Amino acid sequence: MNVMANRPRRLESYVGGQWVAGAREGVPLLDASTGAPVAFIDSTGVDFKAALAFGREKGGPALRRMSFHERAAMLKALGQALMERKEEFYALSTATGATRADSWVDIEGGIGTLLSYASKGRRELPNTRVLLDGDVELLSKDGTFSAQHILSPLQGVAVHINAFNFPCWGMLEKLAPTLLAGVPAIVKPASQTAYLTELMVRRIVETGLLPEGALQLVCGSVGDLLDHVEGQDAVTFTGSASTGQRLKTHKAIVENSVRFTMEADSLNAAVLGLDAAPGTEEFDLFVKEVAREMTVKAGQKCTAIRRVIAPRSYSEALIESLGARLAKTAIGNPADEAVRMGPLASLHQREEVRARIRDLSADAEIVAGDPDAPNVMSGDAAAGAFLNPVLLYCDKPGSAHAIHDVEAFGPVSTVMPYDTAEEAVDLARRGKGSLVASVFTNDPGFAQEVVLGLAPFHGRVMIGNRVSAKSSTGHGSPLPGLVHGGPGRAGGGEELGGMRGVKHYMQRTAIQGAPTMLSAVTGRWMQGAAAQPGGEHPFRKSLAELKIGDQLITATRTVTLDDIEHFANFTGDTFYAHMDEEAAKANPFFDGRVAHGYLIVSFAAGLFVDPAPGPVLANYGVDNLRFLTPVNPGDTLQVQLTCKEINPRANAEHGEVRWDCNVTNQLGATVAQYDVLTMVAKTRE
Amino acid sequence: MNVMANRPRRLESYVGGQWVAGAREGVPLLDASTGAPVAFIDSTGVDFKAALAFGREKGGPALRRMSFHERAAMLKALGQALMERKEEFYALSTATGATRADSWVDIEGGIGTLLSYASKGRRELPNTRVLLDGDVELLSKDGTFSAQHILSPLQGVAVHINAFNFPCWGMLEKLAPTLLAGVPAIVKPASQTAYLTELMVRRIVETGLLPEGALQLVCGSVGDLLDHVEGQDAVTFTGSASTGQRLKTHKAIVENSVRFTMEADSLNAAVLGLDAAPGTEEFDLFVKEVAREMTVKAGQKCTAIRRVIAPRSYSEALIESLGARLAKTAIGNPADEAVRMGPLASLHQREEVRARIRDLSADAEIVAGDPDAPNVMSGDAAAGAFLNPVLLYCDKPGSAHAIHDVEAFGPVSTVMPYDTAEEAVDLARRGKGSLVASVFTNDPGFAQEVVLGLAPFHGRVMIGNRVSAKSSTGHGSPLPGLVHGGPGRAGGGEELGGMRGVKHYMQRTAIQGAPTMLSAVTGRWMQGAAAQPGGEHPFRKSLAELKIGDQLITATRTVTLDDIEHFANFTGDTFYAHMDEEAAKANPFFDGRVAHGYLIVSFAAGLFVDPAPGPVLANYGVDNLRFLTPVNPGDTLQVQLTCKEINPRANAEHGEVRWDCNVTNQLGATVAQYDVLTMVAKTRE
Repeated sequence: MNVMANRPRRLESYVGGQWVAGAREGVPLLDASTGAPVAFIDSTGVDFKAALAFGREKGGPALRRMSFHERAAMLKALGQALMERKEEFYALSTATGATRADSWVDIEGGIGTLLSYASKGRRELPNTRVLLDGDVELLSKDGTFSAQHILSPLQGVAVHINAFNFPCWGMLEKLAPTLLAGVPAIVKPASQTAYLTELMVRRIVETGLLPEGALQLVCGSVGDLLDHVEGQDAVTFTGSASTGQRLKTHKAIVENSVRFTMEADSLNAAVLGLDAAPGTEEFDLFVKEVAREMTVKAGQKCTAIRRVIAPRSYSEALIESLGARLAKTAIGNPADEAVRMGPLASLHQREEVRARIRDLSADAEIVAGDPDAPNVMSGDAAAGAFLNPVLLYCDKPGSAHAIHDVEAFGPVSTVMPYDTAEEAVDLARRGKGSLVASVFTNDPGFAQEVVLGLAPFHGRVMIGNRVSAKSSTGHGSPLPGLVHGGPGRAGGGEELGGMRGVKHYMQRTAIQGAPTMLSAVTGRWMQGAAAQPGGEHPFRKSLAELKIGDQLITATRTVTLDDIEHFANFTGDTFYAHMDEEAAKANPFFDGRVAHGYLIVSFAAGLFVDPAPGPVLANYGVDNLRFLTPVNPGDTLQVQLTCKEINPRANAEHGEVRWDCNVTNQLGATVAQYDVLTMVAKTRE
Repeated sequence: MNVMANRPRRLESYVGGQWVAGAREGVPLLDASTGAPVAFIDSTGVDFKAALAFGREKGGPALRRMSFHERAAMLKALGQALMERKEEFYALSTATGATRADSWVDIEGGIGTLLSYASKGRRELPNTRVLLDGDVELLSKDGTFSAQHILSPLQGVAVHINAFNFPCWGMLEKLAPTLLAGVPAIVKPASQTAYLTELMVRRIVETGLLPEGALQLVCGSVGDLLDHVEGQDAVTFTGSASTGQRLKTHKAIVENSVRFTMEADSLNAAVLGLDAAPGTEEFDLFVKEVAREMTVKAGQKCTAIRRVIAPRSYSEALIESLGARLAKTAIGNPADEAVRMGPLASLHQREEVRARIRDLSADAEIVAGDPDAPNVMSGDAAAGAFLNPVLLYCDKPGSAHAIHDVEAFGPVSTVMPYDTAEEAVDLARRGKGSLVASVFTNDPGFAQEVVLGLAPFHGRVMIGNRVSAKSSTGHGSPLPGLVHGGPGRAGGGEELGGMRGVKHYMQRTAIQGAPTMLSAVTGRWMQGAAAQPGGEHPFRKSLAELKIGDQLITATRTVTLDDIEHFANFTGDTFYAHMDEEAAKANPFFDGRVAHGYLIVSFAAGLFVDPAPGPVLANYGVDNLRFLTPVNPGDTLQVQLTCKEINPRANAEHGEVRWDCNVTNQLGATVAQYDVLTMVAKTRE
C-alpha cells in the first residue's frame, strides 16, 4: 500500500495480527501548515479486549522464549531496517509542522533509541531470560539459607498512550525497553499526528522482524481497552496532566494495581550562573540554548525551557540578546529548507497557546514577539498554525504564580531575575517538579550548590559550560541511557535510563532457599551450592561442556618469606608491611610481615591455570576482589575455583565464563575472594 | 506518664513536637481476649496541615544535615534503647490478642529491622548525603560530556498508614528506610491496636535520639491530612484493598503525583512438590509450615498461607496430617503461657472471618475445624474473639473462584489438588498477584520450573527443603534485606529490600555535564575531570589532607620477555599465551606472547606504592579490573593513580579511599583499568 498517495487516507489499527479499519469514516487530520486533510482516523469496532488477549497469549510467550541478546539483536535489525526507510518518514513528517531538524529528533532520534537499547542490551545484560538483581543475601549463619533477587518479564501487555509531538520517538523510546524486557506492547498515538506513527508501524510489521503480537497499534480512541487491563499489564501515558490523572484513576488500573507511568506537564527551568556575565562563553551558550529550546518543534516539547532564571543584573542584557536572536527565527512552511521554525501542530493548538500566554501575562509582560501577528516567510499564513516566539519578563517571580504553574506548549518562555544561588533554586522548585533543568556556569561551586538543590525536584539536570559546549546534547534531549521523567507536576514517572527502563517492565522477586536450590533457579552458582569437583580440569571444557558448579580444588602452595621478598624486589612494591616486621606490627591491620595481595592472586593463578592450549582463551578481568585475611610467611594457600556463570555470545565463537575464586589458608579461612572473568570457546578445536 | 496504669487512657497524637489529645473522649479500644476497654482514641482538632509543615520544615532539614552513617548510628542507638524497654511492649501487646511468640515477631522483629537497617546502612552506603546510582554514562566521544545518576532525599514527609496486626513492626519496618534516607515520617497506626504504637512512640520520643519533626504520630483519623500532601511527600498504606484504592485515588495524591505504595490483600500459596510424598522430610516440613502460618497471630498476617496447593495423590494424607496438627492448637488467653494461639483482634474481626469462610464454602468444604465453636483452654470464651483453625478442601480448584479471590484474614486455609507442575503454577497465579509463595521440594528441577513460573506474580518466593529446614526464616517472615510487596491484588507496592527500600524515599536524577562539573556535584572523581598531579605522593596524605583528584603519574617500566618468563616460573602460571609464541598467535585475542594480567597489576603497584609507613595502611581489595589491551614484551607501562572517593568511617581512626588506577602503554592506550581500595588514617601520626 502506498500511504504517500495524495488523497487523504483512512488510518487503520493493527490488532490481532491484522490491519483493521474503523467502522466509521472518522475525523480528518489536517496538515499543520496548509490545513489540508492528511488522513482520517477512527477505531470504532476494534475489539480491544481481544487485542490485549492477543498480546498476552501470542506476543508475550514468543518474546519470552527469546533471550535478552536475541531480543537486542531483533531491536538492532529493526532499527537498521527503519533507518533505510527514513526518507519516507521525513516526507510525511512535514505535515505535522516539523522542519527537517525537528523531524531528525523524532525519526532518527527514535530509531537511535532502538539501536542504543540494542547495543546496551548486549553489553549490559546477560544472554539469559531472567535477570539477577543485587547480590546474594545471606540469611543464616551456617550458609544453608540465602536469597537472591531476580527480575522476570511481566506476563501482560504494555499499553503506551503517547503524545502528538513525537509520533516516532514517542513510540520507539517506550517500545525499545518494553520489547527488550520481553513484554509485548499496544501503542496508541495521539490522533493529531497518528498518520506518521501508523506509517512507521506498517514498515515495522512488513519487516517481519517482530513475533506476532509483540506490537499492536490503535489509531483512534482506545475505547474500552483500559477496562480490561490486569495486574500483569502496564500502562504509560504521555500528555496533559488532566488526561493522565483521569487514566491513573481508571477503575481497572486502580483495582488491579496496574503499573502506571505518567509524563505530563513540566515548567522546566534554565539557570544562568552568577559567574556567567554578558561577554562570557556561558552567557552566549545560554542565549543560544534558550532560543533553540523555544523554537525547536515550535516549543512543543515536554522538555523545552519555560522559565529562564537569570541574575538580576544580567537580565536586561539577556532579554536584549535573546530578543534579537528570536527575531531572526525564519518561520514558515517546514518543507521550505530556509525555514527554522514550522507552525504549531494545529490551529486549535495555537489558540490554546495564545490563551496560556494571556494567563502568563497576569504575572509577566511580553518583552519580545507578538503572539498575534506571525512573521511568516513562506507558507499560507492564514491556513497554517504559525506563531512568533514570545518572551515574557516577570520582575517579582518570588511572589508570582502563573509563571510557575502555566505551561504554554509552544515557543514561549518567561525570564525571571534572581539575586542569590539559593533564590535561583527556590524559583526553579516553584515549578513543583520538572523533567529537566539546566544550569549554565563555569564555577564548580555554583554548579554543586544549585544542582544539588534542584536534584530532588527533577529527573535530569544539565550543566552547560565552555568545556562541554561542542559535545553537549543540550537541555531538551532525553537520552536512552538517562532517566526521563520528573516528580510532582511532571507526573512522577520514569522512562529510559538504560537498563533501568527495561526493569520497569519486569517484576522483582526475592527467592529464598538453600544455595543448591537458588543456583538451580537463577542459573548462577553460589557459595554453598552443590558443585562437581574432580574430573577433568574445567579449563579443558568448552562452553558446550561446561556446567555451573564445575569445580577445581587445587594443590597447595606455602608462601615463604623469600617469596615475599622476591616478589617485592621483582615488582618494586616494597611497601613496609611486606618488608619490615616491626613497622608491619605497628600497622593496625597486621601482626607482622604479610604477603602482597597481588602475590596471593598471582600464586592462586599459578595453582589453578591449566597451561596447555584449550577452550579457555583469556582472562579479561577480575571483579570484587577482597583480601579478607592477611597471609603471613609460612601460610599455605589453596584455591577452590568454581564455574559461576556461563554467558555464550550470540555472534561469536566464544562467550564469557565467570569463575568463583576462593583462596584459603591452612586453617580454611578465606584469604581472598573474587570473580575471575574468562573468554571460553564454544566448542573444543 | 505511666501508660500501663489499669484504667483505660486517652491516646494522644504527637505532632508539632507535642503530645496532643483529641478534642473528644473518643472510641474505646477493647482487649481482644476479655473485651475490657484498653484505651480511647480520637484525633479531633489535630492540625494536620501544620504537622506536615513541621515535618517538612523541621524534621527534613535536620535529617538531611546528617550523613547516611550518622543516620544509621541514630537507628542503631534507637533500636538498642527500644530493646532495653521491650518487656513493657510485651506486657501491653497481650491486649491485642498476641501470644509471646506473636509479640516477638511484632516487637523484636520490628526493632531488629531498625538494627538491620542501621548495620546495612553503614556497610552498604557511603558516609555521604547523596547516593550515586549506577556508573558514569559517557555521552560524547571526546569525553567532555558525561552523566552520572544520583539519588537525593525527598524534601517532603512520608505518611505511613499502617495495619492493625503489627502495631510495632508495621511502624518500624517503614520508619527504618525512611529515616535512613533522610526523610521525616508521620505514622498513623490502625486504631484497633494503636495503644501499643503510641507507647512505643512515647519511648522513642523520650530517648531524644531523633531530631524534632523526624517522627510524628496520629492516633485516630487522619482527618484532612491527605488534602495537604505535595509532590515531595510519599504515602504508604497497609491494609484492605478497598481503603487502599480510596487513598490511592485521593485528589491531592493524584494531582501532585505523590508516591503511593500499597500493600493490600494477598492469597498467598504454598506448593507441595511432586517429589514430596508423605514420609519425606519435605512433606513433614510442609505440614508444620502450613499449620504455623495458619495459627501465628491467629492467621492475621498479610503473608499467611491461604491456599495449599498439593499433589492430588497426597491430598488425603496432607489433610489428615494437617487436621491432626491443627486440632492440637492450644487456643486461649495469650497471657497464658501454654496457649499457642490467641483470639482474633476483635469480635468484629471474627464476624468478618466467619463471613469469609461462608464465601469460601461456595467452592470448598470444611475438612477440619469448626468455625462456630472455639475450643478454648483459657480465657473468657464468650467475651474473647476466639476462633478454631479452619481447613477447607476444594476438589476442582481450576474452575473455582472464591478460593482464589476471598481472603479470610484469620486461621483459615484451603487445600487444592494439582496433577502437573504447570497446573500448580497456574493455580497459584489465580491469586492475581501475592506477597509470597512457598514451594516445598527437594528436586532442583521442580524448584526451577515452579519458582520461575511463580516469580512474575510474587514479591517473594521461598523454597523449603531438608537442607534449609533448621535455618529457614519461613514462608511468612518478611526480612529487612528482601523486598516485601507483590504485584496485582497484593497492591503493587514494594517495601524493604535492604537499600532498595531506602531509595523509595529518594529522587533519582541524571546529572549531565563536563567531568569536572560532575565530580564537583557528586564528590566522586571521574576520568576527564580536573586533577591535581604532582606535589607530595598522595599516599603520604591523611584523610584530612587528601582531596578527590589528587593524582600520581608514575615512572615507567618496560616489560621484558625475561620478566614474563620469570613471573611464569615464579608463580607457576605458565599459560601458553605467556610462554609459546606460536600457540599465543593462534589465540583469537593475541598477536604473540603476552604478559600475565597479574604481572601488569603487580608491576603497576610497584610503580605507584610509596614504601615507607604513612597514612595509607592497607590495600583491602580491587574492583572492576579489566585488561583492555594485551601487553607484549617490550611494551612500557605507566600508571595514573587518582583519588576517586573518600569515605571516612564514623567510629574509627581511618576510612576507605578508592583510587582510580589507569595503566597505559607507550602508545597511551589503556592496558588495565581498575579501582584500588585502601584503608587510610584520618590524620598523620
